[in-house]
Amino acid sequence: MTDKRPFDVLNNSLNNTVVVGLKGGVEMRGVMSSYDVHMNIVLEKCEELKDGQVKRGIGTILLRGDSVIYIVPTA
Amino acid sequence: MTDKRPFDVLNNSLNNTVVVGLKGGVEMRGVMSSYDVHMNIVLEKCEELKDGQVKRGIGTILLRGDSVIYIVPTA
Amino acid sequence: MTDKRPFDVLNNSLNNTVVVGLKGGVEMRGVMSSYDVHMNIVLEKCEELKDGQVKRGIGTILLRGDSVIYIVPTA
Amino acid sequence: MTDKRPFDVLNNSLNNTVVVGLKGGVEMRGVMSSYDVHMNIVLEKCEELKDGQVKRGIGTILLRGDSVIYIVPTA
Amino acid sequence: MTDKRPFDVLNNSLNNTVVVGLKGGVEMRGVMSSYDVHMNIVLEKCEELKDGQVKRGIGTILLRGDSVIYIVPTA
Amino acid sequence: MTDKRPFDVLNNSLNNTVVVGLKGGVEMRGVMSSYDVHMNIVLEKCEELKDGQVKRGIGTILLRGDSVIYIVPTA
Amino acid sequence: MTDKRPFDVLNNSLNNTVVVGLKGGVEMRGVMSSYDVHMNIVLEKCEELKDGQVKRGIGTILLRGDSVIYIVPTA
Repeated sequence: MTDKRPFDVLNNSLNNTVVVGLKGGVEMRGVMSSYDVHMNIVLEKCEELKDGQVKRGIGTILLRGDSVIYIVPTA
Repeated sequence: MTDKRPFDVLNNSLNNTVVVGLKGGVEMRGVMSSYDVHMNIVLEKCEELKDGQVKRGIGTILLRGDSVIYIVPTA
Repeated sequence: MTDKRPFDVLNNSLNNTVVVGLKGGVEMRGVMSSYDVHMNIVLEKCEELKDGQVKRGIGTILLRGDSVIYIVPTA
Repeated sequence: MTDKRPFDVLNNSLNNTVVVGLKGGVEMRGVMSSYDVHMNIVLEKCEELKDGQVKRGIGTILLRGDSVIYIVPTA
Repeated sequence: MTDKRPFDVLNNSLNNTVVVGLKGGVEMRGVMSSYDVHMNIVLEKCEELKDGQVKRGIGTILLRGDSVIYIVPTA
Repeated sequence: MTDKRPFDVLNNSLNNTVVVGLKGGVEMRGVMSSYDVHMNIVLEKCEELKDGQVKRGIGTILLRGDSVIYIVPTA
Repeated sequence: MTDKRPFDVLNNSLNNTVVVGLKGGVEMRGVMSSYDVHMNIVLEKCEELKDGQVKRGIGTILLRGDSVIYIVPTA
């Protein structure tokens, strides 16, 4: 094992912009304001992306951890 | 971790309108009257949406948490 | 949290007609005679619906909770 | 809650004919000789159905509960 | 409940030929030499079937319980 | 139950060539150097197969148990 | 069992380049900086691959273990 842990990435990304990939190919980009051990994630100022382009603005969104595939910090 | 938690979004949305995204691409919009730790959610005055347009009126609906992908507060 | 809980909807619907949405897009409409904590549900006088129209009569049916997406009380 | 429970339907159907709907749309019809809490089910004299018609005779079959969507007593 | 249990079918089929249906529609036919509580199953002299016809010979195979839909004793 | 257990097949296959079938239809063939109770499996000198033909060489690979459908010893 | 364990492959790959296969056929290649018991994995300098070719650069990414099918060390 290592001193670093995967959840460090989440903790370090609080209040920063992340892109979250969901099952089904949708990506959500926003400022992460909270998460929990199930990887439930809240994004503020969220935009839905399709092929990297903004598809629609959403605002605040709660993403269920079970649907998350990956999280990319952009800061 | 942070002082905020994802379920705060649910608690703050009680008796307010939310949009719930379900597996399979369906969205339900209604007034959230209750939820539990499994993210089972009850919406009142619920409408089913397709591409953001109202597809049909439903009334009260209990959504099983296992099917929930995201929740968007609209208030 | 709230004083109301999602399972209240189930309890209040006992012996009343409900529509249950299942994975795969099927809807079953019938009188709910019992349920349990897994959302296993028994409907009496059940009819299978397709696009809101009756596809076939079934009678009594036990629906496995794992397949349930939503429950709509109609009373 | 109610005095009735969903598993009553299974218990009352022992040694009677039931139709079991499985994930993927297959239906199996046979005489239920046993079941357990996971909804693993054994049917005797089982026939596979497609659109309500007999597709093939099978005999005894053990159905894994995880694949079951619904159970319809026919007696 | 009944005195019979679904796993009796597995126990009675030890060293006999069974057909195992897997997710995705594949069937495997062989002599069951062992199983466990997860329905992990070992078949000897296994053949893969497609539409009831032998597609290829395999020999010994360990099937993961999570992929099993049904088991048909043929003895 | 029997004296034999499904995991015996894994234990007997250590350092021998096996074919592992994964969800989605991919097969991996290689020398199994380790496994655990979740059926996480490490193959050395692994080759990806398609319809029984070598599609590409991979080398060492860790297969997540959750994706495994079957394991075929070839020794 | 053996003295080697599947997670040894992860531990030995820390700070080395790995390719991670995800559900849906996507591959991610990067330097693994951390992992945990759920196979949640963090890659640095990550690139998304399609048919072995670089599709896009990503940077740091947290992959949810539930989506991982395989991990290939390339060092």
